[in-house]
Amino acid sequence: MFTRTNKLQYNAKPESPDPLMARRLQESLGGQWGEMTGMMAYLTQGWSAVGHEDYKDLLLDTGTEEIGHVEMLATMIAHLLKDAPTNVQENAYNSGDPALAAIMGGMDPNQTIVSGLSASLNNPNGTPWNSSYTASSGNLLADMRYNVTRESMGRLQVTRLYHMTKDKGIRDMLSYLMARETQHQLQFIQAQEELEEKYGVVVPHGTKDLQHTEFSHTLMNFSEGEASRKFLEGKTAKDGEKFKYEENPVAQGQEQETPPAPEDLRNTQGDKEKTVEQGRKIIEQQQNMN
Amino acid sequence: MFTRTNKLQYNAKPESPDPLMARRLQESLGGQWGEMTGMMAYLTQGWSAVGHEDYKDLLLDTGTEEIGHVEMLATMIAHLLKDAPTNVQENAYNSGDPALAAIMGGMDPNQTIVSGLSASLNNPNGTPWNSSYTASSGNLLADMRYNVTRESMGRLQVTRLYHMTKDKGIRDMLSYLMARETQHQLQFIQAQEELEEKYGVVVPHGTKDLQHTEFSHTLMNFSEGEASRKFLEGKTAKDGEKFKYEENPVAQGQEQETPPAPEDLRNTQGDKEKTVEQGRKIIEQQQNMN
Amino acid sequence: MFTRTNKLQYNAKPESPDPLMARRLQESLGGQWGEMTGMMAYLTQGWSAVGHEDYKDLLLDTGTEEIGHVEMLATMIAHLLKDAPTNVQENAYNSGDPALAAIMGGMDPNQTIVSGLSASLNNPNGTPWNSSYTASSGNLLADMRYNVTRESMGRLQVTRLYHMTKDKGIRDMLSYLMARETQHQLQFIQAQEELEEKYGVVVPHGTKDLQHTEFSHTLMNFSEGEASRKFLEGKTAKDGEKFKYEENPVAQGQEQETPPAPEDLRNTQGDKEKTVEQGRKIIEQQQNMN
Amino acid sequence: MFTRTNKLQYNAKPESPDPLMARRLQESLGGQWGEMTGMMAYLTQGWSAVGHEDYKDLLLDTGTEEIGHVEMLATMIAHLLKDAPTNVQENAYNSGDPALAAIMGGMDPNQTIVSGLSASLNNPNGTPWNSSYTASSGNLLADMRYNVTRESMGRLQVTRLYHMTKDKGIRDMLSYLMARETQHQLQFIQAQEELEEKYGVVVPHGTKDLQHTEFSHTLMNFSEGEASRKFLEGKTAKDGEKFKYEENPVAQGQEQETPPAPEDLRNTQGDKEKTVEQGRKIIEQQQNMN
Amino acid sequence: MFTRTNKLQYNAKPESPDPLMARRLQESLGGQWGEMTGMMAYLTQGWSAVGHEDYKDLLLDTGTEEIGHVEMLATMIAHLLKDAPTNVQENAYNSGDPALAAIMGGMDPNQTIVSGLSASLNNPNGTPWNSSYTASSGNLLADMRYNVTRESMGRLQVTRLYHMTKDKGIRDMLSYLMARETQHQLQFIQAQEELEEKYGVVVPHGTKDLQHTEFSHTLMNFSEGEASRKFLEGKTAKDGEKFKYEENPVAQGQEQETPPAPEDLRNTQGDKEKTVEQGRKIIEQQQNMN
Amino acid sequence: MFTRTNKLQYNAKPESPDPLMARRLQESLGGQWGEMTGMMAYLTQGWSAVGHEDYKDLLLDTGTEEIGHVEMLATMIAHLLKDAPTNVQENAYNSGDPALAAIMGGMDPNQTIVSGLSASLNNPNGTPWNSSYTASSGNLLADMRYNVTRESMGRLQVTRLYHMTKDKGIRDMLSYLMARETQHQLQFIQAQEELEEKYGVVVPHGTKDLQHTEFSHTLMNFSEGEASRKFLEGKTAKDGEKFKYEENPVAQGQEQETPPAPEDLRNTQGDKEKTVEQGRKIIEQQQNMN
Repeated sequence: MFTRTNKLQYNAKPESPDPLMARRLQESLGGQWGEMTGMMAYLTQGWSAVGHEDYKDLLLDTGTEEIGHVEMLATMIAHLLKDAPTNVQENAYNSGDPALAAIMGGMDPNQTIVSGLSASLNNPNGTPWNSSYTASSGNLLADMRYNVTRESMGRLQVTRLYHMTKDKGIRDMLSYLMARETQHQLQFIQAQEELEEKYGVVVPHGTKDLQHTEFSHTLMNFSEGEASRKFLEGKTAKDGEKFKYEENPVAQGQEQETPPAPEDLRNTQGDKEKTVEQGRKIIEQQQNMN
Repeated sequence: MFTRTNKLQYNAKPESPDPLMARRLQESLGGQWGEMTGMMAYLTQGWSAVGHEDYKDLLLDTGTEEIGHVEMLATMIAHLLKDAPTNVQENAYNSGDPALAAIMGGMDPNQTIVSGLSASLNNPNGTPWNSSYTASSGNLLADMRYNVTRESMGRLQVTRLYHMTKDKGIRDMLSYLMARETQHQLQFIQAQEELEEKYGVVVPHGTKDLQHTEFSHTLMNFSEGEASRKFLEGKTAKDGEKFKYEENPVAQGQEQETPPAPEDLRNTQGDKEKTVEQGRKIIEQQQNMN
Repeated sequence: MFTRTNKLQYNAKPESPDPLMARRLQESLGGQWGEMTGMMAYLTQGWSAVGHEDYKDLLLDTGTEEIGHVEMLATMIAHLLKDAPTNVQENAYNSGDPALAAIMGGMDPNQTIVSGLSASLNNPNGTPWNSSYTASSGNLLADMRYNVTRESMGRLQVTRLYHMTKDKGIRDMLSYLMARETQHQLQFIQAQEELEEKYGVVVPHGTKDLQHTEFSHTLMNFSEGEASRKFLEGKTAKDGEKFKYEENPVAQGQEQETPPAPEDLRNTQGDKEKTVEQGRKIIEQQQNMN
Repeated sequence: MFTRTNKLQYNAKPESPDPLMARRLQESLGGQWGEMTGMMAYLTQGWSAVGHEDYKDLLLDTGTEEIGHVEMLATMIAHLLKDAPTNVQENAYNSGDPALAAIMGGMDPNQTIVSGLSASLNNPNGTPWNSSYTASSGNLLADMRYNVTRESMGRLQVTRLYHMTKDKGIRDMLSYLMARETQHQLQFIQAQEELEEKYGVVVPHGTKDLQHTEFSHTLMNFSEGEASRKFLEGKTAKDGEKFKYEENPVAQGQEQETPPAPEDLRNTQGDKEKTVEQGRKIIEQQQNMN
Repeated sequence: MFTRTNKLQYNAKPESPDPLMARRLQESLGGQWGEMTGMMAYLTQGWSAVGHEDYKDLLLDTGTEEIGHVEMLATMIAHLLKDAPTNVQENAYNSGDPALAAIMGGMDPNQTIVSGLSASLNNPNGTPWNSSYTASSGNLLADMRYNVTRESMGRLQVTRLYHMTKDKGIRDMLSYLMARETQHQLQFIQAQEELEEKYGVVVPHGTKDLQHTEFSHTLMNFSEGEASRKFLEGKTAKDGEKFKYEENPVAQGQEQETPPAPEDLRNTQGDKEKTVEQGRKIIEQQQNMN
Repeated sequence: MFTRTNKLQYNAKPESPDPLMARRLQESLGGQWGEMTGMMAYLTQGWSAVGHEDYKDLLLDTGTEEIGHVEMLATMIAHLLKDAPTNVQENAYNSGDPALAAIMGGMDPNQTIVSGLSASLNNPNGTPWNSSYTASSGNLLADMRYNVTRESMGRLQVTRLYHMTKDKGIRDMLSYLMARETQHQLQFIQAQEELEEKYGVVVPHGTKDLQHTEFSHTLMNFSEGEASRKFLEGKTAKDGEKFKYEENPVAQGQEQETPPAPEDLRNTQGDKEKTVEQGRKIIEQQQNMN
């Protein structure tokens, strides 16, 4: 269960309005790697974590913090949109003013027409946030790797945004987010390394004997040039085995071909009538197999 | 430029048809973390990599290999759909046969009605593959972390699929994919660690002085319970500094509030007329600021 | 079955071209709350309505009218795009003309490259219209509430668009749409109130005894501040009962935790082998329960 | 800023596992009208509300509560998936058991292969939650109408789910959610009615004189049959004016036609060369107009 | 402007309910190539067609007819869902009845929980219809080719659906749709061929001199095997020129490489400071070029 | 299995950077009809083709070539983004320079913030590429028609892009793509015509006797005006039969109405209790029918 205070985790107030930055900050709010992605990924992972109370708590601490970051960005964006030129009097191509022209051209129409000059749960191109940005696999090590990626991408974008403005208020908030994303990168790296130590470096653990190990430590050279050979060959992989390099990988499978489909599908390649008998034969085969 | 041989990289042929497995394998072909995601992510990253010929080559080697994995899965799925019960005679609820009932109920209608019993670029629920599953950020370390995640998730799913069948042909192919995803995990981990050594562990590099460092190594306790304190407090983070723990994080920002919108938007909270003059004032402020 | 006349329901002709307004009007054509949403929602509701011939007819009257509104907007947009500067000669940053600069910057590339200077079934950011904007639930009162919302949002956006232009032709059409959306708001409110009278104010009707009524009239205070208490406490809700206020809502559920997954999923938390026997036990439990 | 306790707002524990119900409950978690939609819509509206502290607080109270409902559903779904038959031994068409057949056929493959037997932020068909399910328009009355709709649809679906199970644990939780959705319907209706009283019944307020009022109170009969006439004609609309009925609405607009596009687009209908001069003429016309 | 009669264009009534067919028919209603796609594509093309009144009329005739087909399918689906087993008493895994098991497993949860046993604007997997299924390019020949494809795919799917049922009512409706899709294929082929005669076979017309013609009639052999050589080499293409075959296509472009990004993006490959001066240099270059 | 050389199929290098063209070219890379669509559609069709080795080879030749086109576009876009004005110093509304203003306004924020000045797998509006742009139906004739459409749309867009720049490098590459899309149009037309000859002109073949032939050659006049009569009436369709014209098509179906839903769904129109008995009756009816 969650509760909320009305003060923000950190300041989110610009020196002056700037509708172009309002648009750009939508990436950090509702883009692929934005705060909403962090919030929903960590909460979902935390709710399904089991057997590792420390990581569960870590995930829920951070997921809950991220709700507050979404809140900060939504607040900042609303301030930046204040007094944005929305109506005809400021219409760029009547004003002869290149500054207004740029603002008009670069604003996100969604922030005016749909949201009434406040934040949307979109990226700057108006693509709605969707949950396939997140991950929660049930495998904690895979999830921690995802989380390290999320925080790396998030901090990278925040840094880029920092260089797109000189507004001290925006920069103050972005500096704060950068710091938090440093912490989050480091904490998830910490968890990742402890899990690697416990379960092994290859996800998922305990499946070594299921794989064709003769192919598990060889870089295959499918693109011209061998720069990658120099990088990898002979080095010891993190699981302790040596990397090999295959200069000319050979296709080992069958010829690529597919079976014809039954005639009642009217595929151009179909050529025989499927019957109930055939359907039952599948079942029989499988029952015999087990 | 690419070329293609007709033999598969490895065998992709089941012992017998199985439309339920045909549906499930769509996750590895066209799901969030499937082979198509790997293929498009690594190629895009490789095409935009610069200054690091070894990583560029590594990415393009692996991206090109993944096209061949998509091909293997498409071939396998077509074989599994062969002789699937598509027409009325096999109609489950006339046959009184629970086996057929299960097959009918669990098949993906898309694989029959739309694709004519061959593979689709979808996941098992028919959600179309889309490019926001991929990442290519221009920052190689962030991208390598994404790649390690992709391979971890991919191998995890392949392992789950392995346990859902006893068909030796399917298992043979999955064992091969598992091995390749071991290699890919390890090679991207190798690249990641070398990049961390060169650029530092926090992405993006060289931005330490931009952040509010007083918040960059503290876990804030936003969820009840302190299991995460025990996990982190006092440990040394990978960048060499010590983690701190804040038991009761205090909201340090302003009250959350947003400015009123102009009256011509007819927001219920709007209360003042916006004029051209105000629009121009924004510009002035910004020009003075610089 | 539908038929069509070639005259528009109302004029849709601008005084002069304006590619920025052409982009913005896409919101009213193919945005979340645009005319296409109204058209498809009301037709679908009307086709599935039963037992209330008056509402069914009302929905189909209005749904059919909305096809004509989509037609008006498509016509208007095509006129606005006429003579838009698409080729290199007008290229903004060669002309030194801020007006052209703004037009170039703000145009939707989709309307030129993809649609050849005519309307698309998108919003101004090029997000394709999709059917999850609509609703048809089988419950007429819920649907009427959705419809009132659709018409409110639609009219709000039309009004905002009205203030973004001085073109008399565009404004004439928008004034017409505003009037129709007044009618549609009012007619759906009328239906809604009659349905509330007949079935009760809470959707769905006849389910009062299924709910834990001790929680059905209490505002719980999860966010700091009690401004909402003043607003609600002690007032009589529309269903005749009094609103209560809970200052400090207590978590009444169990601790949040999830069960471990079976080992064959290779979750990091998995720790026991699942067997057929266990699978069957689920079935038994459920059969005993009934 | 937000904080979290580990106890759930209310119990979320089933009597026994049931993977089909686990799939269905995804609608209430991550479907169009599910709890995640409520959570994100109310928080976004609350963060952008201004000038009405009571409604702002109401929205933030309820939005924060909904995070806890998402948490309850995620917990319930994980319990229901426990011991679900995921591997080959339970494979339906070997068991000859119709019960297992149904479970296998009806399970969501995503919940096993992708999420490792825990909840996803999807609906039962695996469609990812996306933010275009939500609304935050800046107009409080429009938003309150949306909210009443969300709670109506949400409670309707919860009731349907209630009738799809006899499990006392699931029903207990659903009874609780039903009660909360009663409260939320009633509180938003209360706010809606007060806003209607203050601003008028038609959204947005204060725009009466902008519309062609001769069309604002007339139901036009575009579909065969006049059942809707009886329902509306002569009644007084909620804004105090009388409804009229137009039996044979006449098309009043121009003929539907669109202007030719410039030749360089190679539209088949293009027939004249566009020049810079023409581009500039647009600008001139618009500047003269103002 | 559109009007509507309440009788359907053709009968849409099954002999008996069948929830699995109800799910499958969603493909023809709201799938990629379903009737809704035809309806919206042809209307949009018709509204933007110009200079060819016959094709404009043809498109609008057919687009209007398709609204009626969507209506027929929605009606049929509602009848098929009648009396579908939605509640716990019929719960498959209590009944021991494989027929019910199959129905329960194979039903679309959306049609019950969300739509209340009526049609949705989705495909059978619940993927919402979206407007990127349609096309309207401004080039009539390209559009006619799209339309021929739409009708081919649509009729193919309808035929597959025909073979999935023995219900005479469903088959009667599908036989009607098949006939209409025969007409529509043939009429669009007719238009296509007349346009090819008028404008030439390659879209878009009049651009022959813009292309590198030395590459315009050569099949390049990028995949192993030369079966395609036999098929094409030496034949006369529809535009009158001969096809050539290139056995070993040579890469003629530069080495694939990308320029470094500016340092303020913190790409790992960035290595130089971007300045205002450089920005201005781009402009200059372009102005000199013209 | 695929391999790759590092040289591009053809040159992809502009004379000078141009971030607006970088945005527009995204349509040809990741838009609905872009090269990625061709690549994935042809490969998927080729992998599932059977019984026609020549077409299979043709599809795989062309699909493999298209990977190289995606590569060329990604390379070109990265060059065009070089030195794009991303940071505050170039901020348009401080510079007073309309050229910079236009660039700032028109750039895709995604290409900077997310991709670090390289290509994305999106269209110019940032809409992610998704696999429902492609088609692979199992019916070769339907697929060839799709392919002809893809190449027509692709070449049309490339031609439009050609006219939006004067850069000789961009034009050189576009001229090459135009030529290849000429070849691809012609080769797929060739295949299409041979398949029509073999299987007949109406897709799918061999289903003539399944349809209501009395409706298969009649254009029905659903929209006002008879321009389409003149175009079609009396002409001979490509399958050898004559087209007829129906001036006033009559609705021949039943009244549109839907059956009531069971009470436990709480639809407002529900009015009777559904029982197990009724559920079983459906099954019986169907079993008797067969």
